[in-house]
Amino acid sequence: MDYRIDAITPRELLPGFHGRMVHGEQMSLAFWDVEAGAEVPEHHHPHEQIMHVLEGEFEFTVNGVTRVYQPGELAVIPSNAPHGGKALTACRLMDVFSPAREEYR
Amino acid sequence: MDYRIDAITPRELLPGFHGRMVHGEQMSLAFWDVEAGAEVPEHHHPHEQIMHVLEGEFEFTVNGVTRVYQPGELAVIPSNAPHGGKALTACRLMDVFSPAREEYR
Repeated sequence: MDYRIDAITPRELLPGFHGRMVHGEQMSLAFWDVEAGAEVPEHHHPHEQIMHVLEGEFEFTVNGVTRVYQPGELAVIPSNAPHGGKALTACRLMDVFSPAREEYR
Repeated sequence: MDYRIDAITPRELLPGFHGRMVHGEQMSLAFWDVEAGAEVPEHHHPHEQIMHVLEGEFEFTVNGVTRVYQPGELAVIPSNAPHGGKALTACRLMDVFSPAREEYR
């Protein structure tokens, strides 16, 4: 199965978070265009997640520890760990999840 | 656990394939700088893989189907599917695997 990111219709899955999803059987990738100031409230899920900042500055809290992530940085979010964040500027982010996010297929 | 890609020492895991690895419990990410002309012979593994071209042109064969992948394109490689490829130009690639590639930790 092949994908071209710019051929995927983005969905605003949270206010200000426009995501293009790519799914395998065991993994999902999300490519996000995030509006400056947009926030994802603290939440958790059983899926392990790796968050990667591609562009912009993203303030992100994992397990109660807050940092500003810059382009080229990644955070590994263990299964069920609380996490949330805020786009300090417009951002491009990539998230990888395993298992796949079935609710976003 | 946080990572900064440019702080990870690349390893030449195949001739011409210089990879920076990021590991979670259930996933691994590989960020590759690939020399023009470098090849990965056809192989397979139980890990599901998603291959993403960031820069360059990568000729890639999955399950016997060959295509040239451009920046912004991805291929989902099912568990145990044979795959291999060749960098037609210098490339930057990202691979995501689940489960994690324990042999590359």
